[in-house]
Amino acid sequence: MPAAGGIRGAVIVYGRNPVREALRGRRAANVGEIWATSATAREAWLRGRSPRVASAQEIEQRCGSAAHQGVCAEAGPYPYAQVERLLDGGEGVLVALDQVQDPQNLGSICRTAECAGAAGVVIPERRAAEVTPAVCKASAGAVEHLPVARVRNLADFLAEARRAGLWSYGASAEPAGGKRPVPYDAPDYRGAGVVLVLGSEGRGLRPRVAGACDELFSLPLRGRMASLGVAAAAAATLYEILQKRVDSAS
Amino acid sequence: MPAAGGIRGAVIVYGRNPVREALRGRRAANVGEIWATSATAREAWLRGRSPRVASAQEIEQRCGSAAHQGVCAEAGPYPYAQVERLLDGGEGVLVALDQVQDPQNLGSICRTAECAGAAGVVIPERRAAEVTPAVCKASAGAVEHLPVARVRNLADFLAEARRAGLWSYGASAEPAGGKRPVPYDAPDYRGAGVVLVLGSEGRGLRPRVAGACDELFSLPLRGRMASLGVAAAAAATLYEILQKRVDSAS
Repeated sequence: MPAAGGIRGAVIVYGRNPVREALRGRRAANVGEIWATSATAREAWLRGRSPRVASAQEIEQRCGSAAHQGVCAEAGPYPYAQVERLLDGGEGVLVALDQVQDPQNLGSICRTAECAGAAGVVIPERRAAEVTPAVCKASAGAVEHLPVARVRNLADFLAEARRAGLWSYGASAEPAGGKRPVPYDAPDYRGAGVVLVLGSEGRGLRPRVAGACDELFSLPLRGRMASLGVAAAAAATLYEILQKRVDSAS
Repeated sequence: MPAAGGIRGAVIVYGRNPVREALRGRRAANVGEIWATSATAREAWLRGRSPRVASAQEIEQRCGSAAHQGVCAEAGPYPYAQVERLLDGGEGVLVALDQVQDPQNLGSICRTAECAGAAGVVIPERRAAEVTPAVCKASAGAVEHLPVARVRNLADFLAEARRAGLWSYGASAEPAGGKRPVPYDAPDYRGAGVVLVLGSEGRGLRPRVAGACDELFSLPLRGRMASLGVAAAAAATLYEILQKRVDSAS
């Protein structure tokens, strides 16, 4: 059954940035009704969008989250990208996530990837967070611009990426899949295309995924903690990689 | 009135990493009763700690959060560091946060700071998240090791840091406080002591704080988003700064 506004498989995105980016991103043609509190409805970015005025409670009920900031909107299902399109040309920097399950982490990584200039994010179909409205919120709406693709098997994807000419670097504090990590700033990263592979919170890369990487690297841990958060590791590494590539291009 | 276990001003820390790090960090002598589900109580790291076995509901009720992972513990109030101790010697890398209000961001930044090798974090006393058990959880327990100090006024602190010989770098996408930002990888960062100054989510640095920085820098934004998350900016910058310092020392 089509949802209220007639959009098939519609979801309710919520929060100021997620709704604003949905209105100007890849889902723009597929945004339906907008609900906003009377205060939020007066904000400049909603001008001309004729939001329906609703109470904060009503909005919370619609989107199922208290983090709505006074606005939510009906939108089509998240438009995942085709992985073939991401590999096309074998260029750019992709981020592949091995079973990252926390929506907060997935959203945060997507936001950083979009800002740093990555070409897309690849996630497995199973045992991993998918792009829900909570992830849109955590990404501040970045997923509306950044292509996110789902693959059945991450190790197979890395093999495919290699055939397309990309070189994959997996983050791992420990040796894994028969490889030893080098310091994170040691690799060249300036090849045609690069896949940055990050493991799940706590468990890191699975051996088969680590084995499918061309190289492993580790970020230094100079304190007493055993690991960095995956979103922080993504930020430190993505900026390192993209900065090196930009510096070499200029 | 002292709390159950007799610890004055006690709080309830929760989650596996936070409790484990509390038991071996700066609050170690001030940890009282531990409650754990029967499954968690059998984990090796709790051996010899005689946790009281409790139901998940009981633990959730004690700590007020569903994110307890089957364990919580009574602990003394968070032992804030003296800011004078952090400035003593004028060395190392400090992180100063201007009104970061999200506990998740504060916790995440503390974890990254501890891992990257920062000497401490400085936060304002007012209009900013303080180190609550939710922050301990978001930091995975890193705040038990990393010194966190509170100051009345961040601009005054930066002036004091300058007198102590530290050089402060503020993250700002836009000109602020009469200064223009340079690219984040342009500064030298290798002086005796460095303060990395990060602004609040959304609003960035206040003009007076920006004005008190010695230099402003900005991280490149190569997509369509207007800003990076503060925790991601901290990760990208801290690793850049600390790596440059380590490279120059070796």
